[in-house]
Amino acid sequence: MYIGIDLGGTKIAAGLVTKDGEIKFQSTLPTNPERGSEEVISDIIRIINLTALNMPANGEEIIGIGIGIPGHVIRNTNNLVYCVNLGWDMVDLKGRIERECRLPVYIENDAKAAALAEYSIGSLKGTQNSLLITLGTGVGGGVILNGKLYAGTNGKASEIGHMIVGENFYNCNCGQNGCYETFTSATALVKYTKKLLEDNKEETMILSRLKGNLDNLEAKVIFNCAREGDIIALKVIERFIHYLVIGISNLSNILDLEIIALGGGLSKSGRYLLELIEENIASNDFFGNINNAKIVTATLGNEAGIVGAAMLCRNNE
Amino acid sequence: MYIGIDLGGTKIAAGLVTKDGEIKFQSTLPTNPERGSEEVISDIIRIINLTALNMPANGEEIIGIGIGIPGHVIRNTNNLVYCVNLGWDMVDLKGRIERECRLPVYIENDAKAAALAEYSIGSLKGTQNSLLITLGTGVGGGVILNGKLYAGTNGKASEIGHMIVGENFYNCNCGQNGCYETFTSATALVKYTKKLLEDNKEETMILSRLKGNLDNLEAKVIFNCAREGDIIALKVIERFIHYLVIGISNLSNILDLEIIALGGGLSKSGRYLLELIEENIASNDFFGNINNAKIVTATLGNEAGIVGAAMLCRNNE
Repeated sequence: MYIGIDLGGTKIAAGLVTKDGEIKFQSTLPTNPERGSEEVISDIIRIINLTALNMPANGEEIIGIGIGIPGHVIRNTNNLVYCVNLGWDMVDLKGRIERECRLPVYIENDAKAAALAEYSIGSLKGTQNSLLITLGTGVGGGVILNGKLYAGTNGKASEIGHMIVGENFYNCNCGQNGCYETFTSATALVKYTKKLLEDNKEETMILSRLKGNLDNLEAKVIFNCAREGDIIALKVIERFIHYLVIGISNLSNILDLEIIALGGGLSKSGRYLLELIEENIASNDFFGNINNAKIVTATLGNEAGIVGAAMLCRNNE
Repeated sequence: MYIGIDLGGTKIAAGLVTKDGEIKFQSTLPTNPERGSEEVISDIIRIINLTALNMPANGEEIIGIGIGIPGHVIRNTNNLVYCVNLGWDMVDLKGRIERECRLPVYIENDAKAAALAEYSIGSLKGTQNSLLITLGTGVGGGVILNGKLYAGTNGKASEIGHMIVGENFYNCNCGQNGCYETFTSATALVKYTKKLLEDNKEETMILSRLKGNLDNLEAKVIFNCAREGDIIALKVIERFIHYLVIGISNLSNILDLEIIALGGGLSKSGRYLLELIEENIASNDFFGNINNAKIVTATLGNEAGIVGAAMLCRNNE
C-alpha cells in the first residue's frame, strides 16, 4: 500500500492507495499557502499520519509516500522543491517528511504525477510511449517513455506549455512569445475572446450570457456559445484547435507516441473536442507521426492527483 | 568488433569498428540507387564481406552489423525500411542481410545513428539525456534518453525537422507550414535569401560573389557574406538563429537535456554559430530549461555515419 498526496494551492488531498491504483481511504485539508511552507508541511505530515491510521489490519504495510506538487523537484539540488504558486523556493519537502515519517518519499510535478496515474490505471495504460497534456489555467504535461515517467536531467522535462508554436498578440508569463499555453490554455481562450470582443461589430451571445460583465468570462462559456454557433466563440475555438493540433503534431514528431491523452478543465468538452481535433487533422496535411498516435481524453478525474502521487512509489521501485 | 554501414544516396561506406568506436578499416562503393534495392543490397553484402576479410587474425569475432539509412525502419512492419530518397518502400534490408551474413543486423535512421556516434565517442559522451540536431539540406536529429538512443513507437521519433515553430512564406515538402527545417536548413537559408534579393534595393555582395548566377547560391556564401557585414546576409542569418534557438528552447523544455549538439553542414560555421546562439539566448527571455542545456557543435565528421551504425549493435546489446 502507498500513501499519495496531491498538494494543490487550495487543498492537500491524501489517499491510501493499493499497488493497483485503487484508493481505499481519502481525506483533505486546506492548504492556505500564505502560512508559509513550514506550517503546510506540518499539515502534510498530519494528513499522512491520519491516512496511515486507516490501514486495514491485515498485516499489509505502507511502502512509500508519493507527493504531487504544483511546481518542480530540482534534481541537482538534492531534490529541493520550487513551487511558484505556493511561494516555495528550494524547500526540503522530501527531507522533512522522510525524517518524520521514516518512509521513502517520492516527489514529482503534479501534471507528471497525473500522467503516471493515467499510465497506471487510465487512458495511457499498456502503452510504452505516451503523453498526457493538461489543458487548464496553464498547459502542462507528462511524458511516458519506454514504460516509465520521464523526468529529464533536472526533473524539469515535459514543460510542453512553453513550447513555442507561433507568434501571439501577448507574451507568456515566462517571457517568451508564442508559448503553447498562450494559445491553448483556458486563460488563452479568455484573452483571445476579450480581444475579439473589443473590436467586434458582429452579433454575439457571449456578452448576454455574461450579463454584460466580461469578468465572468470563462472557457466553458466560450465552448457552450461555440456549440450553439456563435461566430466569435467559433473563431476562438477554431484558433484553439489549430494550435492545439500543431502542438500534438510536434510532440508526435519528436517522440513518436502511441497515445496522447488530453486532461485538465478544457478536456471536459470531451467528444466535441476530439471531433474538432479529428476534423482538423483530416483537413490538413500533417507530417506522418500524428496519424499513428491515438488522441483521447483522460479517463481519471480529480483522483488522478492522489493515484499518480502514489504511483510515484511504484515508478521508482 | 562490429561492422558499420553508412548507406547514403551517393555512396555506401563501410567500416570495421571496435567496441570503443575506433574505425580499423573502411571502404566505399557507389550507391547508384536508380538500380533498385536488390542490386544495392547485393553491393551492401559485398562490402560487408570485404570488410570482414580485413578482421585482424587475433581470434576476435564480428558480433553484429549496424546500418544507418537515409529513411526509417518501420518497427510494426517487421523492420521493413522506407527511404524516400532511394526509392525504397518497405524493403526487407534486415532480413536479406541476416540471411546472407548470418549475423544480427541493426538498422536505424542515419541522423539517429550519428547521434549515437556522438553519444558513444563524441560531443554527447557521458550524458544521460542529450540531442544531436543535424542542420543540412534538411534538419534531422537523434535523441538520447536515459543513456539510450530513443527510437519511438514506430521507430520514427526525433523528426525534429517537422516541429512547427512559426509561420513561413512557403510550405514544407511534408505539406505542413512552419516546419523547423523550413527556417533552419541550408535549403531554407537559400530560399529566404532569394526571396530577399527579389525585392531588394540595398547594396549586397551576395550577387557579385555568385557572379550574378543565383543558382550557385549556397549556405556557405550566405555565412561568409554575413561575417563580412552584408546587410541581406545578416538578415538571413538573424532569422535563421531566431528560429534555430526557438527549436532548441522547445526541445529543452520538452526533454530537459544536458547537451544539445549541432551537426550537419551548417554547423561547420562553428564558433561563429555558437556565439550567435549565445547572444540570442542572452538577449531574450527564454523559459528556464534552455539555460541548463549546454549547446555545442558535434565533434565527429563524416565518420559519424559508420561509427554510429556500428554502435547500433552496442545500443541493442
